[in-house]
Amino acid sequence: MLKFEVNILGCGSVLPTTKHNLSSQVLNINNHLYMVDCGEGTQLQLRRLRLNFNRLQHIFISHLHGDHFFGLPGLISTFSLLGRTSALTIHAEKELGAYLIPILDKYCKDRPFELMIHPIDPEKHEVIWEDKTVTVYSIPLKHRVPTCGFLFREKPREPHLIKEMIDFYKIPVKELQLIKKGADFITPDGEVVANKRLTKPALLPRSYAYCSDTAYNPEIIPFIQGVDMLYHEATFAEKDKERARQTCHSTAIDAATIAREAKAGKLVLGHFSARYKDEAIFLSEAKTVFENTQLAGENSVIVL
Amino acid sequence: MLKFEVNILGCGSVLPTTKHNLSSQVLNINNHLYMVDCGEGTQLQLRRLRLNFNRLQHIFISHLHGDHFFGLPGLISTFSLLGRTSALTIHAEKELGAYLIPILDKYCKDRPFELMIHPIDPEKHEVIWEDKTVTVYSIPLKHRVPTCGFLFREKPREPHLIKEMIDFYKIPVKELQLIKKGADFITPDGEVVANKRLTKPALLPRSYAYCSDTAYNPEIIPFIQGVDMLYHEATFAEKDKERARQTCHSTAIDAATIAREAKAGKLVLGHFSARYKDEAIFLSEAKTVFENTQLAGENSVIVL
Repeated sequence: MLKFEVNILGCGSVLPTTKHNLSSQVLNINNHLYMVDCGEGTQLQLRRLRLNFNRLQHIFISHLHGDHFFGLPGLISTFSLLGRTSALTIHAEKELGAYLIPILDKYCKDRPFELMIHPIDPEKHEVIWEDKTVTVYSIPLKHRVPTCGFLFREKPREPHLIKEMIDFYKIPVKELQLIKKGADFITPDGEVVANKRLTKPALLPRSYAYCSDTAYNPEIIPFIQGVDMLYHEATFAEKDKERARQTCHSTAIDAATIAREAKAGKLVLGHFSARYKDEAIFLSEAKTVFENTQLAGENSVIVL
Repeated sequence: MLKFEVNILGCGSVLPTTKHNLSSQVLNINNHLYMVDCGEGTQLQLRRLRLNFNRLQHIFISHLHGDHFFGLPGLISTFSLLGRTSALTIHAEKELGAYLIPILDKYCKDRPFELMIHPIDPEKHEVIWEDKTVTVYSIPLKHRVPTCGFLFREKPREPHLIKEMIDFYKIPVKELQLIKKGADFITPDGEVVANKRLTKPALLPRSYAYCSDTAYNPEIIPFIQGVDMLYHEATFAEKDKERARQTCHSTAIDAATIAREAKAGKLVLGHFSARYKDEAIFLSEAKTVFENTQLAGENSVIVL
């Protein structure tokens, strides 16, 4: 089965602690890596998790608060020093360029690879990237600055050929692509072998949504309906609900409510405020609303 | 005895690894903290070492390579979020402002504390800061961009009063300041008690020099003559001497030669290239030239 894993590099909120790094994740989808957010220290976490720098060709930045993107200059400088050659695209709100380009032009100007900044509109729900492996959609969120989440949806895959049947009917190689596309096979004797006897369907495409940072926002539910796994910020516990409202963040119960309404397969909580010594409170509160919840944790890999 | 300690936050060279963080140190001199360099991840190391953020009022940046200053935006944002009120001065080559101010004005604009950038001229050896505790001098170094090291020299302290003698002669409190300044005491009977019978000298002022990044540069020797402790970069071992010359870095032997010629009390090596698995090579090579050498290491405190 093809990989679909989420590597948690950091799941703390704005103040890094000895327990939590700043926001960053790397999705490994069929050995293609996609980074979401890049707080300070991300390059070191990438190394700790032994993720192959060269396979990372896309970085998606949710919003321009320092704890979500201050790791970019160091990461890009390191890529440059390591002699990276493959192109890197950063998808972010258009203002990122005004911050990043002058720094890189000054302190990392002889980059041996192409760096592109693809501006996205965080207020729209639309396709922002598409390749052979995935389609990535923006999810407009509600925060103090323009912010969007990201939905990664695997491309539907071709059905698998049933080897025994292919051998039995001695089907020529050149016909196999047509069969994968749904064609029946007609034997030299004119017998029609139905496609469903020759193939078995591929697994359903998997999907993952990253929603951070955001206030409780039920408007996102249609965009993430039926998602296999939802990462939703839970900066605060219920007793600090008022603080969540003031700062445009969510509580664990807010996150769980979104997961329940969106009929998500699983909920992963993160972006924990440094004020909580025991984070079990997030889990127990969320589980009262949505059972299949887990807490994110640094250096962990969640497999879909 | 008053504190004079060097906390090593990071002593790796440009590529952070799971073994080494990027360059940063904090000197604790009599509970005043002075930071030297601020690579990415420094704020987290500061927290790990449980150093009091508010006592840190001066940051000295040796040069504008990313691994020595990319940690500043995150550090300052965190100070701001934590409601710091005491002023912070960054001493650095004048170009730092052009990089730092736009970021901070954009992403950390409501700072509750005053931030000053004090431009220094890395080509000069001069006093760049002076307070009750220390005098800080710049040390011009040789690197690919304008770079200077820093010499921290404790202020001479007043001699200690010998309590028994003060009591014996019933010396009035108002005379004590004069005696600390060197005055003799004259009793009501006209007897002259020499100052040296009333006081014992304070310990000699201690000194510490930070020299990184730099090629082998004997021109610095007069500036650091007799320093108690010298931190000198040793990016490369002897077998990579050629690489050191090309990149304007030093070998362990270069560093030890400087320490020997400057008659330093102790040498601490750092800024190790990530290419060496076993760093014992730095120590053994340096010791052939200068015996009292040790390797820097993260989260260690070296006491003068």
